[in-house]
Amino acid sequence: MRTTFHAELDRLAAELGAMCATAGSIMSSATAAVVYGDMNAADRVWSELSHLSALNQRVQDRTLTVLARQAPVARELRFVVSAIRIAGDADRMGGLAANVAKVAQRNHPAPAIPSDTTAHFAEMGRVAVELANRAHHALADFDADKAREVGPADREMNDLHRRLFTLVSDATWTHGAAAAVDVALLGRFYERFADHAVEIARRIVFEATGETPERTDYEAAMEATL
Amino acid sequence: MRTTFHAELDRLAAELGAMCATAGSIMSSATAAVVYGDMNAADRVWSELSHLSALNQRVQDRTLTVLARQAPVARELRFVVSAIRIAGDADRMGGLAANVAKVAQRNHPAPAIPSDTTAHFAEMGRVAVELANRAHHALADFDADKAREVGPADREMNDLHRRLFTLVSDATWTHGAAAAVDVALLGRFYERFADHAVEIARRIVFEATGETPERTDYEAAMEATL
Repeated sequence: MRTTFHAELDRLAAELGAMCATAGSIMSSATAAVVYGDMNAADRVWSELSHLSALNQRVQDRTLTVLARQAPVARELRFVVSAIRIAGDADRMGGLAANVAKVAQRNHPAPAIPSDTTAHFAEMGRVAVELANRAHHALADFDADKAREVGPADREMNDLHRRLFTLVSDATWTHGAAAAVDVALLGRFYERFADHAVEIARRIVFEATGETPERTDYEAAMEATL
Repeated sequence: MRTTFHAELDRLAAELGAMCATAGSIMSSATAAVVYGDMNAADRVWSELSHLSALNQRVQDRTLTVLARQAPVARELRFVVSAIRIAGDADRMGGLAANVAKVAQRNHPAPAIPSDTTAHFAEMGRVAVELANRAHHALADFDADKAREVGPADREMNDLHRRLFTLVSDATWTHGAAAAVDVALLGRFYERFADHAVEIARRIVFEATGETPERTDYEAAMEATL
């Protein structure tokens, strides 16, 4: 019975990891759509989102089953409750990546972004996918050290985001208001994607080590720009 | 023992309701800051956010305690799991409202928004607060009928949001790119605030009646603009 229980918890961790990997894949496709105008990549987003949705449903069903049948307590209970929240974060990452793809599809065949921002978004996309993959591996092994590696990549994203915001708000922006709006919204999607990956990592560190996360959600809210 | 259990579930529902009411209060203060330049209202946001954070912590502790001590099954288990997710939505509503206040504080003493958009945001604020209050009352009574009343208000918000986006993207926008960016981001904060209230309402309907929500998350993601 305990073996079954721990096998279930392992499956849960693996499915959560798969959700993060899928969210990263969606963001990779979405970024290709925005930066390169790759509409095949944009189309891929919808089937990948469907897959993410199916994984989410599987996680939700499994958490309910484990809670009902195994009546976990203490650390295992907190793990299962964390799993519910982590699934929510990973699901939202997929939604945000899909929003990126929508901007590309909405503007097509016109470019989604001004050409002098493509390198910026290519980089944000790279960092976003890296964050999702790190969250994936941290989850699959439920490894606090791997989870801590998420932090530096997030600071990279915050920096890129701030620079982007400065770019569109500056008097030297020549591409007009509509383009500024699309670029700002895109930047926010990437930033929030990263935020969710960081949240997942913080939950892993807390569950694996009992360490209080570096900052409370309240403090994080206070500090977050935009 | 069962009386204690149901008393705990009632407290959970009440605390979730209080979280929504608090999120609505934060959004009310934040809207006053953005629309009227009321910096006293902006200052209030931070103590209200702190209160929301404390409620969130209380809910998280209570759900863990109930799961550990009562080992609920079936419908009561699903309610407790819903509570975990609803708390996440309500917490995020507070964060989004705080983001609205930050835009006001960032621009102060300059107006946060062009004067020809103030009526628009006053209306979005009114609808947002109404949504939070409806979610509050639906939760406190765990009432599916009250929860269903959230839908029409959300459609109002979607409409306001779409009109705002059209406004800033149009060639007739004369306030420049920076203002367009702030207005677009603000619009997104109000829209997402409403989305979370709708999500709470859908969870209540599902838990109270067993009815499958009108649309799957996947479909909602497909349809959502911006």
